Amino acid sequence: MSILVVGSVAIDSVQTPFGIGNNVLGGSATYFSTAASFFTNVNLVAVVGEDFPEEHLEFLKSRNIDLKGLSIGKGKTFQWKGRYGFDLNEAETIKTDLNVFQSFRPVIPAEYVDSEYIILANIDPDLQLEVLDQVKNPKIVACDTMNYWISSKLDVVKKVISKVDFLIINEGEARQLAGEVNLVKAAAAILNIGAKSLIVKRGEYGVLYFSSSGIFATPAYLLENVFDPTGAGDTFAGGFMGYLANTGNLSDHSIRQAVVFGSVMASFNVEDFSLNRLKTLEYHEIEERYQKFKAMTHFDEL
Amino acid sequence: MSILVVGSVAIDSVQTPFGIGNNVLGGSATYFSTAASFFTNVNLVAVVGEDFPEEHLEFLKSRNIDLKGLSIGKGKTFQWKGRYGFDLNEAETIKTDLNVFQSFRPVIPAEYVDSEYIILANIDPDLQLEVLDQVKNPKIVACDTMNYWISSKLDVVKKVISKVDFLIINEGEARQLAGEVNLVKAAAAILNIGAKSLIVKRGEYGVLYFSSSGIFATPAYLLENVFDPTGAGDTFAGGFMGYLANTGNLSDHSIRQAVVFGSVMASFNVEDFSLNRLKTLEYHEIEERYQKFKAMTHFDEL
Repeated sequence: MSILVVGSVAIDSVQTPFGIGNNVLGGSATYFSTAASFFTNVNLVAVVGEDFPEEHLEFLKSRNIDLKGLSIGKGKTFQWKGRYGFDLNEAETIKTDLNVFQSFRPVIPAEYVDSEYIILANIDPDLQLEVLDQVKNPKIVACDTMNYWISSKLDVVKKVISKVDFLIINEGEARQLAGEVNLVKAAAAILNIGAKSLIVKRGEYGVLYFSSSGIFATPAYLLENVFDPTGAGDTFAGGFMGYLANTGNLSDHSIRQAVVFGSVMASFNVEDFSLNRLKTLEYHEIEERYQKFKAMTHFDEL
Repeated sequence: MSILVVGSVAIDSVQTPFGIGNNVLGGSATYFSTAASFFTNVNLVAVVGEDFPEEHLEFLKSRNIDLKGLSIGKGKTFQWKGRYGFDLNEAETIKTDLNVFQSFRPVIPAEYVDSEYIILANIDPDLQLEVLDQVKNPKIVACDTMNYWISSKLDVVKKVISKVDFLIINEGEARQLAGEVNLVKAAAAILNIGAKSLIVKRGEYGVLYFSSSGIFATPAYLLENVFDPTGAGDTFAGGFMGYLANTGNLSDHSIRQAVVFGSVMASFNVEDFSLNRLKTLEYHEIEERYQKFKAMTHFDEL
């Protein structure tokens, strides 16, 4: 099954203790789409400006990402400038220029309206609802959001959440959304809003998956070199949904495997700036790291 | 096999967002010993003051902890006063009165000098060396330390580390000790000092185990109610070593299981103030939670 991804494509400038990436490819939908493209076909709905480099379009095409839904707006591409200290879990935003993204209204091409797997990246929750209004028969919807929307449009965020199968957010956002420090209690409150399940991203500490089947907890894959955490969460979600769309198996077992595939994709992504590592990644490396992940976390029954 | 535990027994006053525990039983050796006592016999070497309540001695005896090595010094028992905010990973020390602990020189009773399993709780590394000088044939030595000793007596800390099988410290201490932010690199540097293996405690995020066999990573057991994290790390280490001493099996498989048993013990401990939860805990509950832990973290091979 192909996946429909709606979100941002951006030009990033990122500084970490290990180097600088200036004017590199970024954006949540870019990471989502690229990660998912290792598992299935991806249809991308987003907007870029007239300045968007041809090489980036060529890269997305080379990943078999369908760009019918990528419009080119009058003006510049969305730009984000950020910085990480040694605590790579926390980005500091230096500057955000929304540019063409400011007036983005997602229009789903006719060829995509039957999409069964949908990823709503972190955009205005009103736009997320507009996307859901345009698709006919979504089987699985995953969605991200952020502290800004939870503060400013909580009612709309909740309306979106009530329609999704997987809400994929980070630890701080889960606590903020539920108004509760304890994550088990916060998850119960969020499932109560109507999300079928909740995935909590904890950066270098791994991922939690909460659903009516219980809790699945996994650490992150341990790496000797982490250069740039930008896009790790989106890469996780892309790998997660890509695996599910590829297998079509939505059992608890399969979802747990998808969480691990997502974690594996994120672990590759942080090994280099921007999407550089994903550009050279081959599928057999993903399976190999999945096996190493299993070996790293396995312990015997009693 | 019985375990020899050397460390502090204290009276704690602890404040968390969920309540207050005033003048309650505490001390690293107390948590170590009690947790280990669910798996094997424990011999405790520590000092208390003349004020130490009889009820606490009775409790330790009820856990079959041998108190031949517990001396009663002239003066008051070591007292610690601390506070936790909503971030339960970080304690703020309000007051420390070392009292009789200030002049503590561990004397290992003749009956204990053949001990094969030894836990050196967080005390002056010079005293940790004195303990090792007094025992004849240690098979497995585990040791803890803290930022204070790493700053003030690094050479002695390193000497201790070169003699231990399991260095069990928290994430910040591992980074400080190695002078390296990345934990995989920090672990390599610490193994290079001479520790046979390293266990890194990450609080609510779980545990990492590094050895020449590779890395084992596990999240922590997820709890709906965490009242008081005091002693969680020591309870972990007590359960870990207790399990190993009980089975005598030091394979990588067994060590991984021991890490999970330690995590299970810590998860019980934080459910109430002081050692209150351990006071009512029964062994079948430990095995039941181990099984839930397995269910919570399991995912299938490819």
